[in-house]
Amino acid sequence: MLDRPPIKVGILGATGTVGQRFITLLSVHPWFAIHVLGASSRSAGKPYATAVNWKQDMIVEDCKPEAFKECGVIFSGLDADVAGDIETNTDQRAHFVRLNWPVFSNAKNYRRDPHVPLIVPLVNLEHLSMVSQQQALHSPPLKKGFIVTNANCSTTAHVIPLSALERKFGPIDTLMVTTMQAISGAGYPGVPSLDIIDNVVPYISGEEEKIEWETRKILGGIADVEPEQLVGEKMLQEFDLHAHTPLKISASCNRVPVTVGHMINVSVKFSRSPPPSPQQVCEALRAYRPGAQVHGTGAGVSVGRVRQCPVLDIKFVVLADNVSIGAATSSIINAEFAVLKGVVG
Amino acid sequence: MLDRPPIKVGILGATGTVGQRFITLLSVHPWFAIHVLGASSRSAGKPYATAVNWKQDMIVEDCKPEAFKECGVIFSGLDADVAGDIETNTDQRAHFVRLNWPVFSNAKNYRRDPHVPLIVPLVNLEHLSMVSQQQALHSPPLKKGFIVTNANCSTTAHVIPLSALERKFGPIDTLMVTTMQAISGAGYPGVPSLDIIDNVVPYISGEEEKIEWETRKILGGIADVEPEQLVGEKMLQEFDLHAHTPLKISASCNRVPVTVGHMINVSVKFSRSPPPSPQQVCEALRAYRPGAQVHGTGAGVSVGRVRQCPVLDIKFVVLADNVSIGAATSSIINAEFAVLKGVVG
Amino acid sequence: MLDRPPIKVGILGATGTVGQRFITLLSVHPWFAIHVLGASSRSAGKPYATAVNWKQDMIVEDCKPEAFKECGVIFSGLDADVAGDIETNTDQRAHFVRLNWPVFSNAKNYRRDPHVPLIVPLVNLEHLSMVSQQQALHSPPLKKGFIVTNANCSTTAHVIPLSALERKFGPIDTLMVTTMQAISGAGYPGVPSLDIIDNVVPYISGEEEKIEWETRKILGGIADVEPEQLVGEKMLQEFDLHAHTPLKISASCNRVPVTVGHMINVSVKFSRSPPPSPQQVCEALRAYRPGAQVHGTGAGVSVGRVRQCPVLDIKFVVLADNVSIGAATSSIINAEFAVLKGVVG
Amino acid sequence: MLDRPPIKVGILGATGTVGQRFITLLSVHPWFAIHVLGASSRSAGKPYATAVNWKQDMIVEDCKPEAFKECGVIFSGLDADVAGDIETNTDQRAHFVRLNWPVFSNAKNYRRDPHVPLIVPLVNLEHLSMVSQQQALHSPPLKKGFIVTNANCSTTAHVIPLSALERKFGPIDTLMVTTMQAISGAGYPGVPSLDIIDNVVPYISGEEEKIEWETRKILGGIADVEPEQLVGEKMLQEFDLHAHTPLKISASCNRVPVTVGHMINVSVKFSRSPPPSPQQVCEALRAYRPGAQVHGTGAGVSVGRVRQCPVLDIKFVVLADNVSIGAATSSIINAEFAVLKGVVG
Repeated sequence: MLDRPPIKVGILGATGTVGQRFITLLSVHPWFAIHVLGASSRSAGKPYATAVNWKQDMIVEDCKPEAFKECGVIFSGLDADVAGDIETNTDQRAHFVRLNWPVFSNAKNYRRDPHVPLIVPLVNLEHLSMVSQQQALHSPPLKKGFIVTNANCSTTAHVIPLSALERKFGPIDTLMVTTMQAISGAGYPGVPSLDIIDNVVPYISGEEEKIEWETRKILGGIADVEPEQLVGEKMLQEFDLHAHTPLKISASCNRVPVTVGHMINVSVKFSRSPPPSPQQVCEALRAYRPGAQVHGTGAGVSVGRVRQCPVLDIKFVVLADNVSIGAATSSIINAEFAVLKGVVG
Repeated sequence: MLDRPPIKVGILGATGTVGQRFITLLSVHPWFAIHVLGASSRSAGKPYATAVNWKQDMIVEDCKPEAFKECGVIFSGLDADVAGDIETNTDQRAHFVRLNWPVFSNAKNYRRDPHVPLIVPLVNLEHLSMVSQQQALHSPPLKKGFIVTNANCSTTAHVIPLSALERKFGPIDTLMVTTMQAISGAGYPGVPSLDIIDNVVPYISGEEEKIEWETRKILGGIADVEPEQLVGEKMLQEFDLHAHTPLKISASCNRVPVTVGHMINVSVKFSRSPPPSPQQVCEALRAYRPGAQVHGTGAGVSVGRVRQCPVLDIKFVVLADNVSIGAATSSIINAEFAVLKGVVG
Repeated sequence: MLDRPPIKVGILGATGTVGQRFITLLSVHPWFAIHVLGASSRSAGKPYATAVNWKQDMIVEDCKPEAFKECGVIFSGLDADVAGDIETNTDQRAHFVRLNWPVFSNAKNYRRDPHVPLIVPLVNLEHLSMVSQQQALHSPPLKKGFIVTNANCSTTAHVIPLSALERKFGPIDTLMVTTMQAISGAGYPGVPSLDIIDNVVPYISGEEEKIEWETRKILGGIADVEPEQLVGEKMLQEFDLHAHTPLKISASCNRVPVTVGHMINVSVKFSRSPPPSPQQVCEALRAYRPGAQVHGTGAGVSVGRVRQCPVLDIKFVVLADNVSIGAATSSIINAEFAVLKGVVG
Repeated sequence: MLDRPPIKVGILGATGTVGQRFITLLSVHPWFAIHVLGASSRSAGKPYATAVNWKQDMIVEDCKPEAFKECGVIFSGLDADVAGDIETNTDQRAHFVRLNWPVFSNAKNYRRDPHVPLIVPLVNLEHLSMVSQQQALHSPPLKKGFIVTNANCSTTAHVIPLSALERKFGPIDTLMVTTMQAISGAGYPGVPSLDIIDNVVPYISGEEEKIEWETRKILGGIADVEPEQLVGEKMLQEFDLHAHTPLKISASCNRVPVTVGHMINVSVKFSRSPPPSPQQVCEALRAYRPGAQVHGTGAGVSVGRVRQCPVLDIKFVVLADNVSIGAATSSIINAEFAVLKGVVG
């Protein structure tokens, strides 16, 4: 247990599906205490009636910094179309990072930013080290404010076993993934029922590119920029995007009529030769103990049908509870780790 | 076959689900030729790309009368929230009925109007006789313009067998219906998939009241108003709402995860005593030949499981293809009948 | 907590869906300890590999009494087609009740037996009092053996709120129920997917009659047989099947493409006049505290949409988690109560 | 049209899902007249009540040759577990091929036989030429009897566009396919609903191996055996299994909660370098005119989302109506072609 008073937290986008999940998880959290709920001006000013048993109900606030001034951490479940503006823009009213808040954001807006960590808790928590450079490069430099993002829920699912395999067998060279994603991954109202009941939709806008790009950033490391440069007294660093081995990835994404649970068919080719056998892969996955503690029941992934791939080396099936492992859970674990490491002041 | 040139028709709300169905059905219709497609100003001005093999594509127009001046009939698939204004309001631009067009509307707006027929083709085409009074009472009186509505798709499904039973066994006294309605009945985007996949939603806004009210108007007759009044040389008439026997109806409506097909559990009590047996009911339904010709495959309803009801008299199950029997099909059959009867000039 | 050593229990039909549920619930039960698993000879002799963390795995036995001799209680999840023979027939090998075991059975075979209680835990635990008469009338009289049954899962769902309403407002006169039942209610393999995906099946074999009959037995009381007869020193009694008010019931049953959760549309007419208002009904349901303790999360039913019924008095919707409330849960609560009351020795 | 009297045909396995489809298609066929229906002895002797409007109903026969003696062609929808015995075994009663019937079989039993053509109508009808060798090698040689098989429905779906691409761009080198298959592909009762509603099952027994193997036979050619051997006056030939380019294939198969329609994600690498662009692939698919006439509406496949694959060359999505394109349709087109080519006497 943490030997300090709970940290007051604000939730941006509190009325959406990710926001609701933040509230469910944080309302019983030992370290964080929900202090402010922010949403669009459409909801602002209304009471937030929820099933959780709070002593007193809360009023939803506009996503303006004044309301959040007592908060030590901001969680954001904002949609991508507003997240950029509210989380970091130069408008003084809405500038959460600039105003020195740690922001843990689920939106896709800053995932590709060269200074922003994109962290899957069981995989690359060490990327949190880039926060100090992010702060130093800000103008003016930030003492407490920063932004950390988490990945798309289908990326999150497959990088967990892939990370385990790379730790054991060295770099992966080629990756083909075909996803069958649950409708809960699309938020609410999400996919119209007429499009998906008794149907498969073999397209999810932007998803394939996201998986292909995010996987490289997450499985990649951090390297000194060449030629060498200094930031204060430290070397300027960058995410290397799996530069030690160019990682070829092809993702095909499908939406299926399932409420919860992303099923993913994965084939991989390893750099090393000969590659591990299916049995060695099974043993590596069974033996894998991620660095971060798993966060309660369900927030893991299941791997099955590990077998030879006649084209690449090994193929297997990944099933992830996209609600438990996704968005809100990842943001919160990232924040816990940031607290433990002293990154959150 | 009709011995006259095809009637040019306009379709209001041509881009919605009902409008699309109008286009599908009318593009191969022997009597009607699609001439103008109208939609909200959001779509107006764009080409209407469809699967039907028209020689030349059409441009969607604003729903303003000028564009429709060559049309002899207007079909309306407008949503209820705009239908009232566009179909009949006093704004000179948008006043289709007032400007003397016959309008066959699928919207709910005028279904309860005491001068507007609410017609289910297989059931109460004789209600078309109220059109002349509707025209005469208009100020100024209309020569060609009028509005005829058709019913909600779940009402349509159960009144067909109920009408057959009333013709054979006399008035129904009590009716309990429980619907399990397909998502296609809610249009597009309609029900969010997260609400309905692996779920039943035991509520459809306004539906129970609509079924209870519309059933009485459709199964009811037309009677002289008392005390007697004249409209020109004719007696003023009204829909009697099943006045010969007060019809008690209780409807319970549910949405189920089914794409097409409304399933309805019906229990009825007849006025006459003793009531018909299940076998007599089966025979009556088998022998029933509706006055209007059935409109191709699928545009009927199926009845099964006719059996004793321990509370009322008889219970049975109705299954209707809500897409084939619904909205657009009913409007078109009503228009065909109006042409045959000379109600459309 | 019970101040006695755990009672060893045997489970008949341990490999079916109900049997699996018995095992899940009993493996963490404070009073009962699973001692023998019985199944058909097809499974007998094999180890029962389960997810539960038993210290040592168990071998499935044939459903013959020898294997169960140390058990104090038998739970039966046997299918109806074998339950009758195995639970009580005169074949000495298989005669569990005759051999003096208390049997809590989920099968339908003995539900209508005039000496066998049919108990829904939240509703009519007082019917357990008929056990002593059942034992006394057996030839030869039984000291410890008896059979108690529980109801069909859709009956169980609606009798809970109906019981609450009868306690508050007196007897119900008429009841119409339309069920939309989940596929999990049909066991495994149950309904073929081709029959139910994107479909409603408006028929469940025997279900409507079961609901109509079981509801009367459960909501009814126990009365002295007339003319009076003695059983030993007690009056001979019978289940009165709601004799104080003949209860008219009509049930219509449908299978819907939902995995878990029976949704039921209910309309009721009370004997008393005037009937309670929807608001009074809501208040009565909210205030209701069943005699038996609720058995953990989910093992209740939800009632919503309480409103006037234009035909009977009041209509509402019941949603029950048929897996949590059903079969195994009811049997176990009945057994707990029997232990508390000293009916199990 | 064929200038000859209709050929009387017998259907083996007439009561299963494939058999029912044979009956539906053949009952309106211009060349073939259903003459005998054969099924297991469980059904034999009963009338076959169907929806098709035959003048007189037919009695289902046992699958013994005597009943089929007037038939010129046999279609078989038998399940794999009995197909081998009934279609070709040495038991004199059941030896349809040996007794000189042309058999068009949907079972998997003979698909891999080195003398039996495995034909997808739009793809490799030329493999029919192996029939004469099959007859000559039989002991004693057959004059009229032979067996032709058709492929698994998911293989059938993807080989059609692959064949079009090979004709235009030369051999395919590598193929990765991930299927999302409808439940109708599993026959009836097929997949239990509890396993598939709101779920994906990432495994179909034997399917991946079947796709990998059958694709090579279908896309491959026919070559003289080396060293050369004679069969009568002809060279002994064999299916070359795509020997001109070893075809690497990896298939991953999933069952999804969809009633009809197999969706397949395909990635291909061509032998030639540079490979065709996505645009060239689109053009080739649009221009493709298969040698065999397409058999009515629906019996084709749709290809979409043709795009670059970052790992192989090109990826795209295939959607096939597995009921229309599958089993029975393929067998019948194969038989039509055999009649046209004089292979059926």
